[in-house]
Amino acid sequence: MRNIKLTLAYDGSAFHGWQIQPGLATIQGSLTDVIRKITQENISVHGASRTDTGVHALGQVASFRTQSALAVDEMQRAFNALLPPTIRIVAAEEFGPDFHARWQAVEKTYHYRIFRGAVLSPFDFRRVLHYPYPLDEQAMAHAAKHFEGEHDFTSFAASSGSEDTDKDRSPIREILRSEIVRKPEQEEIVYVVTGRSFLRYMVRKIVGTLLDVGRGKLCPSDIPNLFDLRDRSRSGPTAPPDGLYLVSLKYPEPWKIG
Amino acid sequence: MRNIKLTLAYDGSAFHGWQIQPGLATIQGSLTDVIRKITQENISVHGASRTDTGVHALGQVASFRTQSALAVDEMQRAFNALLPPTIRIVAAEEFGPDFHARWQAVEKTYHYRIFRGAVLSPFDFRRVLHYPYPLDEQAMAHAAKHFEGEHDFTSFAASSGSEDTDKDRSPIREILRSEIVRKPEQEEIVYVVTGRSFLRYMVRKIVGTLLDVGRGKLCPSDIPNLFDLRDRSRSGPTAPPDGLYLVSLKYPEPWKIG
Repeated sequence: MRNIKLTLAYDGSAFHGWQIQPGLATIQGSLTDVIRKITQENISVHGASRTDTGVHALGQVASFRTQSALAVDEMQRAFNALLPPTIRIVAAEEFGPDFHARWQAVEKTYHYRIFRGAVLSPFDFRRVLHYPYPLDEQAMAHAAKHFEGEHDFTSFAASSGSEDTDKDRSPIREILRSEIVRKPEQEEIVYVVTGRSFLRYMVRKIVGTLLDVGRGKLCPSDIPNLFDLRDRSRSGPTAPPDGLYLVSLKYPEPWKIG
Repeated sequence: MRNIKLTLAYDGSAFHGWQIQPGLATIQGSLTDVIRKITQENISVHGASRTDTGVHALGQVASFRTQSALAVDEMQRAFNALLPPTIRIVAAEEFGPDFHARWQAVEKTYHYRIFRGAVLSPFDFRRVLHYPYPLDEQAMAHAAKHFEGEHDFTSFAASSGSEDTDKDRSPIREILRSEIVRKPEQEEIVYVVTGRSFLRYMVRKIVGTLLDVGRGKLCPSDIPNLFDLRDRSRSGPTAPPDGLYLVSLKYPEPWKIG
């Protein structure tokens, strides 16, 4: 059996999220259909992250096992020819037999784009959060730093479930980088977060909380208290999916073959 | 009566072109509905360019006359609040009584984007022409220069009709700038054309002809012959609308009030 790693970009506004669902257009569903058609095998596709409806990806990673003899370049071309143009395979590589896109991921990076200008470009509709109202961006930047390190993220998650596993019920997650980046020429701020893994809705709950800090409803120093409270009703609302991008995944060793 | 000038950006892939058509989503139709709703007047909206289905705009200009006392900033906000997010009013200004978006335009600039990389971003779907095959870009650049100046564009137009007027049946047009611009970091070439006015499909026919030059089906020196032939079957095909953007309009004097 060969083990194939795919790197994917997609416009999430066209799909009901990553996970396969009967009768709904999903990334995993589209990908599974196309790979089965090309390989003529009953393959399963595993994604590093189960992105939700409307969430975008620049560097989602998926893997599947196959007996197909097709070269990876030919796979990429054939899959892209059949996939909807809102899903693109950016790279296809052959990896070692025990590589698994979800279980071996050691780091994930998300960006959340917030457009601050008065008029959003029609080309950015559903691709950024448009927030033209006053925000204390410095307070948001301070608050963002509080998320770094290992914390109990119960206050910043969906009521149940994890983005990357059904098995791990622990609400403890480690965040390696959490910061607000200003793009002045684009009138945009971007929240950049890197972690080993995330709970469901966790990035969007953090962004909703940072927006509450920006509006003065919360202080940066409230963040440590929110970890202690373990109460999701006390943190900010879940920010809409429009601005969220899964940017990249990191794997521990060179699994690549050849 | 006040005379209002609107500068518009829109994602053309969501509309059946500029011109109002019963039962179809068009830019002029959406704009007319919204302005009538806000002003409670039976206004007409005039656009500088009747862009076709799928053609985009960054700086389309429209004008209408109104008795409304609403400040232009309030008009912009109110119109944008009711318009679909794929149409945005970038600016609203009050202009002199004889200003007319179509009749007074003295220059129009279009860009046509051609993506040369192997994999098109899912976020650029319907927003560029994807042409990953070999092209002699230097020959295209030479050919583009031949379009500058005053020429009979019969070979580069729809069989009948003009983009900007029903009255002017002359196929003579003056092009002020016609060139290929390379954006190496984006694997993209952009055809930039500025003219006083254009025949229907003229930019897309020029692009189709430049692509034929790039493929070696035509030589740069064939362009002057195509002007003489006055035969649209001898020029290249009409390029798809996806890559075409109406970028800006120029008006002769400062009509602006206040």
